[in-house]
Parts: sequence; structure tokens; C-alpha cells
Amino acid sequence: MTVRVGILGATGAVGQRFIQLLDDHPTFELATVTASESSAGKTYREAAKWRVDAPIPDDVAEMEVRATEPDSVADDVDLLFSSLPSGVAADVEPAFLEEGYVVSSNSSNDRLADDVPLTIPEINPGHLDLIEVQRDERGWDGALVKNPNCSTITMVPTLAAIDRFGIEEINVSTLQAVSGAGYSGVTSMEIIDNAIPHIGGEENKMETESRKLLGDFDGTEVHHHEADVAASCNRIPTIDGHLENVFAKLADDPSPAEVRTAMREFEGVDLPSAPDQLIKVYGEADPERPQPRLDRTYADGMGICAGGVQSTSDGVKYNCLSHNTIRGAAGASLLNGELLVEEGYV
Amino acid sequence: MTVRVGILGATGAVGQRFIQLLDDHPTFELATVTASESSAGKTYREAAKWRVDAPIPDDVAEMEVRATEPDSVADDVDLLFSSLPSGVAADVEPAFLEEGYVVSSNSSNDRLADDVPLTIPEINPGHLDLIEVQRDERGWDGALVKNPNCSTITMVPTLAAIDRFGIEEINVSTLQAVSGAGYSGVTSMEIIDNAIPHIGGEENKMETESRKLLGDFDGTEVHHHEADVAASCNRIPTIDGHLENVFAKLADDPSPAEVRTAMREFEGVDLPSAPDQLIKVYGEADPERPQPRLDRTYADGMGICAGGVQSTSDGVKYNCLSHNTIRGAAGASLLNGELLVEEGYV
Amino acid sequence: MTVRVGILGATGAVGQRFIQLLDDHPTFELATVTASESSAGKTYREAAKWRVDAPIPDDVAEMEVRATEPDSVADDVDLLFSSLPSGVAADVEPAFLEEGYVVSSNSSNDRLADDVPLTIPEINPGHLDLIEVQRDERGWDGALVKNPNCSTITMVPTLAAIDRFGIEEINVSTLQAVSGAGYSGVTSMEIIDNAIPHIGGEENKMETESRKLLGDFDGTEVHHHEADVAASCNRIPTIDGHLENVFAKLADDPSPAEVRTAMREFEGVDLPSAPDQLIKVYGEADPERPQPRLDRTYADGMGICAGGVQSTSDGVKYNCLSHNTIRGAAGASLLNGELLVEEGYV
Amino acid sequence: MTVRVGILGATGAVGQRFIQLLDDHPTFELATVTASESSAGKTYREAAKWRVDAPIPDDVAEMEVRATEPDSVADDVDLLFSSLPSGVAADVEPAFLEEGYVVSSNSSNDRLADDVPLTIPEINPGHLDLIEVQRDERGWDGALVKNPNCSTITMVPTLAAIDRFGIEEINVSTLQAVSGAGYSGVTSMEIIDNAIPHIGGEENKMETESRKLLGDFDGTEVHHHEADVAASCNRIPTIDGHLENVFAKLADDPSPAEVRTAMREFEGVDLPSAPDQLIKVYGEADPERPQPRLDRTYADGMGICAGGVQSTSDGVKYNCLSHNTIRGAAGASLLNGELLVEEGYV
Repeated sequence: MTVRVGILGATGAVGQRFIQLLDDHPTFELATVTASESSAGKTYREAAKWRVDAPIPDDVAEMEVRATEPDSVADDVDLLFSSLPSGVAADVEPAFLEEGYVVSSNSSNDRLADDVPLTIPEINPGHLDLIEVQRDERGWDGALVKNPNCSTITMVPTLAAIDRFGIEEINVSTLQAVSGAGYSGVTSMEIIDNAIPHIGGEENKMETESRKLLGDFDGTEVHHHEADVAASCNRIPTIDGHLENVFAKLADDPSPAEVRTAMREFEGVDLPSAPDQLIKVYGEADPERPQPRLDRTYADGMGICAGGVQSTSDGVKYNCLSHNTIRGAAGASLLNGELLVEEGYV
Repeated sequence: MTVRVGILGATGAVGQRFIQLLDDHPTFELATVTASESSAGKTYREAAKWRVDAPIPDDVAEMEVRATEPDSVADDVDLLFSSLPSGVAADVEPAFLEEGYVVSSNSSNDRLADDVPLTIPEINPGHLDLIEVQRDERGWDGALVKNPNCSTITMVPTLAAIDRFGIEEINVSTLQAVSGAGYSGVTSMEIIDNAIPHIGGEENKMETESRKLLGDFDGTEVHHHEADVAASCNRIPTIDGHLENVFAKLADDPSPAEVRTAMREFEGVDLPSAPDQLIKVYGEADPERPQPRLDRTYADGMGICAGGVQSTSDGVKYNCLSHNTIRGAAGASLLNGELLVEEGYV
Repeated sequence: MTVRVGILGATGAVGQRFIQLLDDHPTFELATVTASESSAGKTYREAAKWRVDAPIPDDVAEMEVRATEPDSVADDVDLLFSSLPSGVAADVEPAFLEEGYVVSSNSSNDRLADDVPLTIPEINPGHLDLIEVQRDERGWDGALVKNPNCSTITMVPTLAAIDRFGIEEINVSTLQAVSGAGYSGVTSMEIIDNAIPHIGGEENKMETESRKLLGDFDGTEVHHHEADVAASCNRIPTIDGHLENVFAKLADDPSPAEVRTAMREFEGVDLPSAPDQLIKVYGEADPERPQPRLDRTYADGMGICAGGVQSTSDGVKYNCLSHNTIRGAAGASLLNGELLVEEGYV
Repeated sequence: MTVRVGILGATGAVGQRFIQLLDDHPTFELATVTASESSAGKTYREAAKWRVDAPIPDDVAEMEVRATEPDSVADDVDLLFSSLPSGVAADVEPAFLEEGYVVSSNSSNDRLADDVPLTIPEINPGHLDLIEVQRDERGWDGALVKNPNCSTITMVPTLAAIDRFGIEEINVSTLQAVSGAGYSGVTSMEIIDNAIPHIGGEENKMETESRKLLGDFDGTEVHHHEADVAASCNRIPTIDGHLENVFAKLADDPSPAEVRTAMREFEGVDLPSAPDQLIKVYGEADPERPQPRLDRTYADGMGICAGGVQSTSDGVKYNCLSHNTIRGAAGASLLNGELLVEEGYV
């Protein structure tokens, strides 16, 4: 079965990753790419300043870029991926939903809305059924699912793995790559030989999205996890890969080995783009791992790496890492798209 | 009054900073530089691979490098600064102390010894009187004082400032510059486009030294502060300046403004190399500060910068920064040397 | 004697360097700062995103920013420094010149105009008298002098020093810092772990400006130097300091020692901001110098460093370096301003 | 047909690349890995500090590391790749050759020896027959072939392509990645926010090896190309990929388009690891390419990229790039190994 898909905002950094990930996808066929008005009518090659280190797939290069509006997209497209800037997405996504499109969106708007599922397939696939609530409340024929922020998605699988030990509080510091801010987000003069201890809105995203992801869905609403989460977010001079230091206060007192086992055995999901083992865990022999440059491509960028697990006075500390523009953005939306198909929403 | 000083281990990275800081010092006059056996007899210019971006002071350049042993150092040297590797220092420092030298040491050995004062002049100058205990126990004529590790020293002034609010627990993540590992400590292939979430021994130093520094000295022994400290230490691609994210659990519930005021008003000390204002605090208008490249030279590298103060569910989070090879190493020993003079130990 | 000066375009990267360099200047007193319409009326502190690692001088911080037009500038300002974008400068500089202002400009427009002196005080101070031709032709009361591009200015002093050996052809490759492109000119995603072998317009500037600078002025026109110059310009991940590899084909066959001597003895100029020794030359014992991070601050950033001199089959090759935003931009205009005063044009 | 191969010096940076490239090779089967005495007897996993971003192939990980001496290598190994340090190689390679082994070596010793073929299969495959001279002179049963230095190999294919226009002189500047110096060759403190205009011995290698590669072999000796070559070599803060600026003085006066065509149409060779198109050429629309991070993986790191072709007064200037540890080291030896098989020497 082939699913015809489109990308809203296909020329940006995340859009380019979508195109790369959709190349040779077993069931998704890229049928439409959209961008801003100024790019409409051009070929994709003309419209995009391509910066991925693999070439543009030939068929995509010659595809005509459409305007980002329902009328420009063919009716037989089954699923749309959105990597629009959140301000634009807030205006445009509802228009597509009213027309009945199913949208898997990486944009940050509406992630915390009560009737919008915020999902990571391995963590909370059941939240997808919020779509029923969403359709009731909004009167949409389509469906909107969101994936979390790249810094949230790096940490949450490890939290889900250790929540059996009773997470009571999380402090987390991030060391984030520049690609997370988009192509022009961080200037070279800001970041060479430097670090910036602030990323606008990022700390709040980590603190709130993680509690929704780890929450319980009772069929009507999601009850957010009760643990307090405090995040400090830093930008550092790396291209790709977010590294995070997590301090978890736990009700139980697991050994580091028990924590590592819980992470290693955390179950994945059977979707085309999902890794066989979601969390790769480094043990005591490799205290220097994970590292962004060496570990960001684990499982083609779709996996999470963890390491440095040590006990603290009231829980554990450890480090985790993922590829922020693959698992943390385009790949996250793609996986949600695969889940939508699996669950019959497409 | 002129104090004649020497540097043990003068050719390394910290040794070079000592030389730079002693150039034009109001009361200290550099009389002796020592290094390993292989350098003894050479001029300093020949022996040192000079890497500071100011030239070697002319008089030092032509100074003869001595072997690092008491017999090689002139008797009229009043005070020695030590930047020896800790393994070497453990062997060599006692020999100088037995000969009656006063040593202000940056080396990490013996920092936690019960009878060795670990001091930051602005934080715990009174601990210096442990020297009396030390002389009793070891039978030394000399005196040994240590300064803490560069990552500890960045954080502790801010902790001392907010301890009035009752510190109960500290989680801290560091983003540390490569110079902290010495000239050859971090290879370029390890760190370009990367970060390393482990620095051997560093986390333990932060967790233990900070509690000794903030402890109470009752005239006989230091009672370490009771707060639990958990640290995660990361190396990032910056040259100088350690940035740290602190999460402090507090008994009280101060506002961010109260925390900033406590830091800003934290009292300094009247010594030649001490900054007028120890902690420079950035407010809400500057959430992106402090940054290593822009703030590491505050107060000629002898100050601490803080910012990003925000309330959490059980305390505050904030960021702090200092120049790791000035305030965090050579400058820390220098200031302890000035305190030794002030307190009459030299 | 105090000269009252103003800065056109004072909030940008070069404008901030002007302010830094004018702080504590012996004879120049900053009286006016201008910026774009949107900044006019604000204090300088409000209008500028200050990024120099020293604080804004207090008196400048509270200065009111004016619009960049003659009516906004007080009549008693004697000399204007211009760091406007070249497109803006082409429109605005003539308006000031018509009003009789003397302008020392870093903007690239008009550098090759027949009646505009392009000067480096140590190289071709006599070209300043083109101002007479300029006044005749343009009917201006004021006077306009330009300094060359930062990559040109790094190389030309060394060329002037060796022209006694008969320069016949120059090939030059540059390794240029990101600050040369302005604060937002190079994104971090473009340059981390990378290099870019193209800087728009830069090669042409080096190829043409250098020949004008080294040319002869006969009182009426400048006869450009006849040597062919071919340049390849590269951007690399450094903050400040342009490094250049020069291959010079020479009529004579000097030894490397003779070349080094010619550079070392090249005469400077007696102006307040000029270095005592213009070109610092590293010999055979230091083949790894000059390096951007270690040498860019030579002579407070106003000097040139050279090294690596070796003979080739038809001449010499060597490396040279300068601080691109000091000697290569704001400092270059400042020095031309000092020359204008010295020569009586102010 | 399967060829059993071994790697001499398998644990270093180039050795690791050999292992990566041999994984899944169509005809070569890795049978032996050697390293220094201290590693002998360990498994490869234990002996090597693996730093490639793909995992160690499982079968290699458990292979026993042998000492680097003929007695330790099984007799049925047909071909050896050498990535030994040149000092070690000068001692050890002859021992293997006397025992009759065929060695394709990346080590720099003997590259210029009159009876040692220095080959790039696409450039001078015929030079391989120097092996006959070598066997006559040295009395070896084996055969030794060398590949050039990584900086030479980046430039020479483009020179071979344009030599039809009569190369008379070459000036070349390099911007070289840190991996070219091995894992510990360049410290982070040397290179962050910096560049180093000197790489010991590198300039001489480019100046001499390129002339041998482009020379004529008359069946007895290689007559080196007569063009003078002058090189300036720089280290910059990139991980992989050498970028070079070439200035070529030519007898003819080709247009940039003719130069690009000559490069694009330069014929490759039909060997398993050779790229279909040896030189990828960027035209006028892409003046910013090639760039290390975006282009080093062209043709799996085995191709050359060129661009920025422009006419100069007496020839052309252009830029070229290759992956220094693949095409410039392990891949170069591998390709020579494939040529040895093709030509019947194995």
C-alpha cells in the first residue's frame, strides 16, 4: 500500500530532512511540496537552497513547488507533514484540517492544546485517540498530531524508561546544536569559541511537553505527569545532536545497572522508520559517551543514546543524546505519520 | 613591602598564567621559576613553549629555570606558587614545606585533607588558620594552602551568596573550556563539532570541594556543608571560560530579584588582585548572558558572572561563569598568596 | 588640540570598534553617533546590540543616536568616520561632503574612483593630495578619503616592503575570519567544521585596491602598480584576524633573510594610533607563526605580522596577518583621520 | 576471486579507515591486522580506540591483533596495506618485501625513491611497472607501491586534467583538516578560533610528489614534470576534508568553461573503489563550492570536487577538495591495491 504524502514548508532545514528521509521510504510517496508564495511555481531545485550533504533526489529536484494552501495541494494526497514556522502554522494548519487533511506537524503551536495529541510512538501511542476529541470539538474532518520539541524528545524516552522507579523531579541541562535554530538562527560570531545559556522558549517547552507526553490519557483528556521539571538550555558550537544532562529524583533507589537495563529494554515500536533498539546505553567502560559527533547517527539518527548513569543522594544522574533534526524534528513527524497509518487515521 | 615569590612548574599552561599575572604585580616580585629536570638550566624562553597572547615579560624570558627541589630555590624566596601536576605535587610539595616554605598551590592533591586549608579569600578566609593544625600535625615550618578546582570556584561564590536562603541540594551541569585540561589535554579531533560529557575526577571535585569551602571551621576542624551536590561535567569547544547551570533547592523561597541582589551585594575582599565587585549579575533584560567569550575577562578574569536567575518549584536555577585559567587556577593561587601575606603567614 | 569627531553608522560591528578605539584617544573627542532612521532618538545603549568584550564607555552609552544626514550632525564636528554599508554610503557620503564635512570612510564604494585617495598612512600618505583634484572635480568643500578592504590592508604593507625587489606578479590566498562579514554575515551552520572558498567581491578588491595603493601619484592622477594580482579568498571558522599566503614573483632574487629585513625595517609613521613597528616578522625558528588567535592583537591590533618567508623558483612565498576589524577597518579609518589632521585637512 | 589482505598498523586513524573501507569489499577479505608489540595478542576491540562514527564490524572486533613482523602474518595473505608511521615503516616494510609480500603503503617514506612507484590509478597507472626495476635493484620477491600525501592527491587529478593546456608553474595554498595529523596531532588549544600556516614537511611533499606523479615513465625511470610547484600549507579547524586554492600558469589560454570541461571529462578507471566520475566540477552558479563539510563525502569520499574556476593574467585559478583520510589515505592505498590485482602483481 502506497501513501501519498506532502510537505508543508519543504524548502527549510527541516523540510530538507523530510525529503531526505522520504527518499526510498517503503510506503510513503512524496507527491507535493509547498513553500511560501515567493517560491510557488519554481522547481524545488530552484526554490530550495539545498544544504544536506547528500544530493537532492532527482525526482524531487524537478517537482513544482506549490503555495502552502489547501487549493494548491492535490486531493489524492493522504498525509501532510508540516515544518512551517509556528506563527505561519497557527494560521495555515487549521485551513488544511478543515479541508479534511491529516497533518503530522513539527511546528510548536498547539502542542499543549487539550485536544491535540502530542505523541512519540514508542512512548504514548494511545494519546493518538485524542483525535476523536479533537474532531468533536473542532468539527474537523482531518486530524492533527504534533511531535515534541527536539530537546524534549531527546530526554523523554529515557524518562519513560525509568518512570517505573517513580520520577519525582527532573533537573536537566542541555547542550544543543546550532541546527536546532534553523539555518540562520545562530550566527557564527555568536557561537564560535562560545556558548549561549539561553534559547528562547525552549526551557518552557521541555518543562511542559515532557509532562504531557508522560501523562495518562483516560479517553477524554491527558493528565500530565506530576513530576516537576526544571530545564536550563544552552547552545554550543556543534552542528547536529543535542546532548543533555539529566538529574532525576526518584521514589525508589535503583542501582545504575538497573537503570541501564530499564533503558536498554525499553520497548520500541514496529514502524518502518523506528529503530530496533530505541535507547542505546553506554556502560561504565565508556563514561565519555554519548557524544554528539560520534553518536548522533545511531540508528540512522532515529535512536536515543544514553550513558554516564550514576547514583545521586536521591536518585540518578545520566546523559542522553539524539539527532535534533532527524529524531528531534523531521523523523519525529515521519514516525507519527507512520503511526497514523498504522492506527487507521490515514 | 616586596614579597619575593617563586613558581613551581612554571612552564605549563597555568605556570604561564602565573607569569602573566605577576607581571606588574604591586608587591610580588618573581624571583624563581622551576620546571622538570629536562628544563633545568635553560632560560625560561628556551624551556617554555609560550602560548599566552601577550609576549613573555623580558626579565622572565632570560631567567634561568631551576629544578623543582628545595635546594634549587633561593632561601630568600618568601612564597611559592605551585602549578605542578598533582602526582608530582604530592611528592614535591612536602619537601618544600619541610624546608619551611609557604606554598599556595593549585594542584589537586590534598585539597580535602583535614589539616589543609582550601580557601577562596572572599568565601572562607578564616579557614586559613587550619595552618596551625597543619603545623602541629605535620611538624612543618612552612604552610600549605590550596585553592579549589576551576569548576568548583566558578560556582561556590554564587552558592555562598545564596546560602542565606538555606541551600539543601545542588544539581549542577558544567560547560567547560578546553584550556582546563592543559595544552594537550583535549585533541582537536575529540572536540570540534562535539561535546564530551565526562571529565575524569571533575564531578567528584565539585561535589566535595564545594562542601568543604562552604563549611564551618571551629578552630580545629572544618565541618563540611550538609547540602548534597551532584555535578555533571562536560567539555565543549571553547578556549577559556567555564559556564555552569546551577539548580539549587532552597529552604526559603526568594524571588529572582532577591537572589540577584544577594549575589550582587556579596562582599569582596581588599586584596590587590581581587575584583571590586566579585559577582557581576545580569538581569532579566540579558537572559543570554553570561557567555564565555564575552564575559570571561570580567574584572581581568578574576570575577564571576551570573545570570538567568529563575524560580523553580523548590528553589532557583541560574547560570554562572568564570575564567578557568585565571580565577579558576593561577589567579586563585595568587589571591590565596595575597591572603597569606595579609594574614601574616608570609 | 581636540578634534571633535562623529561616527556615521555607529551601531554596527565596525561602528562599535570605532567607539572602542576612540575611548581614551589623545586628541579625538567623540561628539556624534548616527545610525539608521529606526535608531534615531534612542540612546546608544538602546540602539546598539553591543558585542565588544569590553563594556560600552559610559558617556557613549547615554549619547543620543542621530539620523545619518547632515542636518542631524552638529556644525562643530570636524571629522566624520564612516562605517556605513556601501550601498548606503554611496548615497549619504556625498551629502556630507557637499556640506563641507571631512570624511574618513571604511565603506567600499568609490575606493577606485580616480579622484578619491585610497590610503594607508604608512604606505602612500602622499596620495592624500588627490583631495585637491577631488575638490576641483566635485566642487565639494569637504574631503573624502577611503581605506582599503581588510584583506587588502593585511597584504599591502608587506608588498610595499618588498617592492624594492621588483614585484612582477602576486598570487594570494586568504583565510579570513567571520567578523569580516559583519555580525550576521556568516551563519554558524555555514562555517562550523567547514570553510567557504568564496567571498563576494573580495578577490576583485584585493586585485585592484592593492595596485592603486602601491601606485605612483604624479600630482594629478595615481598610476596603478603594474604587477598582476590574483587572489583566492576563503572564509574559515575564526572570529578575528585574516591570515594570508602570498606568492610573489620578483625581478630580483633576495634571500629570505633579506626579505625579512626589508619587512622589519619598513618604516612606520608618527601618528597616535600607529604602531612603533608596523610589521612584526617571525623568523625560521617560528614557522608556525603568525596565527590569528595569537597574533591578531599585536600592537593593539594595529600592526601586521609576517612569517614563513621562503624562496621559490621565481621569488618568495610568505604569510601575513592582521586584525581585520581593527587594522583592517575601524583602525584604518582612524589612522587616515589622524593623517588628515596631520596634513592640515581638518 | 577473493584476495586475502592484511593491514599493518591497523589500530591508528588511517588503519580504522582501512577497516571501514574493507567492510563489504567485493573481492578483498581482511585476514590479518597488526599493530605495535603492546597490542599484540589483544582482540582488535581491546587494542583500538575506535573513533569512526560507524561501529567496528563484528568479525574484525574479535580478530586477534598480531605484531607487525612477517612471522606473525599468515602465508596465505596476498596483499598488505600499510598505514604505519613513516619512521616505523622505513624499518618494517623492507622485511615484508624480502619475504615476498606485496605492500600498498600510505606511509611517506620512499615515495620519491627512483624505483618505487608512486601512483594514483586514474593518473599514472603505468608507473606501476617500476616494480620490475624495483625487483631488479632490491632483489625483493614482493612489491612496494606508494600513494601520495593527502594534500598532493587532492590537487593532482585536477592538474592532470588541465596539463593539456601546458602547466608551467603552480602556486597552491591548502586549508587542511585536523584529521590529517592523526588523532592527537593537533590539540584543541592550538586550533579553535585559529589557523596554523605551517605543517611540517607538507609543502615539500606537495612540491615533489606532484611532479613525480605527473611525470613520464620510460620503462626505466620516471622523468618528473618540469613545472615549478610552490605550496603553502595551513591547518584550519575542520575535522575532515582538505580544500586547496590552485593558481596555475599555463602555456595556453583556455576559458574557464574549457577548464571545467577538461576536469569533468577526465577519465576515471574501472576498479571496485573508484568513483564513476573522478572530478565533480561546480560551475559559475555555485562559486561557494566545494566546501569541506558538504563535499568531502562525494563518491563515498573517493572523488575530487573542484570549482571557482577563473582566468588569471597567465592561466587559471580554481579550488579543489577531497576527503583526506579516505581518498587521501586509506582509500588511496586501497585503490592502488585494486590496481595491483588488476595488473597481475597480486
